[in-house]
Amino acid sequence: MENRPIILVTNDDGVRAKGWRCLIEVARKFGDVVAISSKEAMSGMSHAITIKEPLRVKLLEDEPGYKKYVSNGTPVDCVKLAFNSLLEEKPDLVLSGINHGSNSSSSVLYSGTMGAAMEGAVNHIPSIGFSLLSYERDADFRNVQEVAEKLIGRVLKEGLPQGVCLNVNVPDLPQGELEGIRICSQANGYWKEEFQKRTDPHGRDYYWLTGFFQNREPDGKGEGTDEWALERKFASVVPVNTDLTARHLLRGLKHWEEKQDEK
Amino acid sequence: MENRPIILVTNDDGVRAKGWRCLIEVARKFGDVVAISSKEAMSGMSHAITIKEPLRVKLLEDEPGYKKYVSNGTPVDCVKLAFNSLLEEKPDLVLSGINHGSNSSSSVLYSGTMGAAMEGAVNHIPSIGFSLLSYERDADFRNVQEVAEKLIGRVLKEGLPQGVCLNVNVPDLPQGELEGIRICSQANGYWKEEFQKRTDPHGRDYYWLTGFFQNREPDGKGEGTDEWALERKFASVVPVNTDLTARHLLRGLKHWEEKQDEK
Repeated sequence: MENRPIILVTNDDGVRAKGWRCLIEVARKFGDVVAISSKEAMSGMSHAITIKEPLRVKLLEDEPGYKKYVSNGTPVDCVKLAFNSLLEEKPDLVLSGINHGSNSSSSVLYSGTMGAAMEGAVNHIPSIGFSLLSYERDADFRNVQEVAEKLIGRVLKEGLPQGVCLNVNVPDLPQGELEGIRICSQANGYWKEEFQKRTDPHGRDYYWLTGFFQNREPDGKGEGTDEWALERKFASVVPVNTDLTARHLLRGLKHWEEKQDEK
Repeated sequence: MENRPIILVTNDDGVRAKGWRCLIEVARKFGDVVAISSKEAMSGMSHAITIKEPLRVKLLEDEPGYKKYVSNGTPVDCVKLAFNSLLEEKPDLVLSGINHGSNSSSSVLYSGTMGAAMEGAVNHIPSIGFSLLSYERDADFRNVQEVAEKLIGRVLKEGLPQGVCLNVNVPDLPQGELEGIRICSQANGYWKEEFQKRTDPHGRDYYWLTGFFQNREPDGKGEGTDEWALERKFASVVPVNTDLTARHLLRGLKHWEEKQDEK
């Protein structure tokens, strides 16, 4: 069992999520696994961290090559706890998911699954977030498991550049009907919200956040984006930067600079 | 009062934060202001959104050209609520802050202040997040107010490319001692956590998240990064992408692609 890679597996759908179990299953083929998840679903938690509340961790399963923990923290808290308190050394790989629901296009910004993967990348650990385009509790994760097996093999062998992680989305199709894997850019899109306004029994208004995804790429175009690949039954793999600098603007904004003496 | 720009102002330090009041003060010089904030501090909330709980909004102040609301949501929820329920049309500018504490380097990923600014940018509204490098409740925000006044003027006049917002950090210096403004890239750094482990009266362990920032840029180097500028008493302005695609890798990962028929 020596020299097996150490793989951290987290998710944002809570400790009972089928997608998490399915990802742990794949990860255990490749290495020793430490799994840690929030107890409850933490969807939409993005890169949030817990500052005002104390964090608790409980060991749920402990067998050779496999430990499973539950925590009250966010997905990013889980990664931080693992790095700093549960693991004796940094892991070789961070996996997050398999998320129940898409994290393509700008959804990457809200995603707890991708928040955890980006936290791995900020710490210079190769990291991958996986999502299936189905919110079903009992969704069929076999296609994603196959994609995960291929990509985990690739990343363990070839590595990933520091500060970059992968955002992998897989369309919800019967097993075997996936067309393949595409390296993609993030589609230009946003969530168009429609807050549902209701009134409580005490006469006070409240709102439920709801909405639908709007793709801004021109009709039938957007070739090479994740949305484009997913529509064509491909798994999409977007390399995601944790350095958010819009480098193409550094020069164009230069004339906004000021120096005290020059004023 | 016609044709005055509509400016949305939010923050992540809660409705009573001095930094928010100071930013609203500057914004009102430029246009009609709609201000909405979480009631309590929401530091570390990143781009989190509230899915499982209903959102509530209360109007606190209402005078010509100025409305102030409080909500129970995250900073990103506040922006979404304003766009979709409070404002009749999209605003001309989204401002977030002035945050009590730094959001430079990779802190941009955890920041509720910058989450709100990025939400503005995803919706193609020019957006700026402001932070002061002081956690003091009664910090002196006058330097930031001066920087904000200059940058708001610039952005209202020249605009910002779609999907990009600005992350502005200002060192904590006596008024007049700021050296100037620099356009910067995000410094390569991370938070080194040191979880403080404690035991509660019932004998159960818990952890407090604490840590300190580690700059990975080589000593005395990192020229042009935000950390570099801030150390030299400059305000740093980082243009921030909401498209996280690591475009320089799209070609290098191409050989990972697969097509069903080719297998």
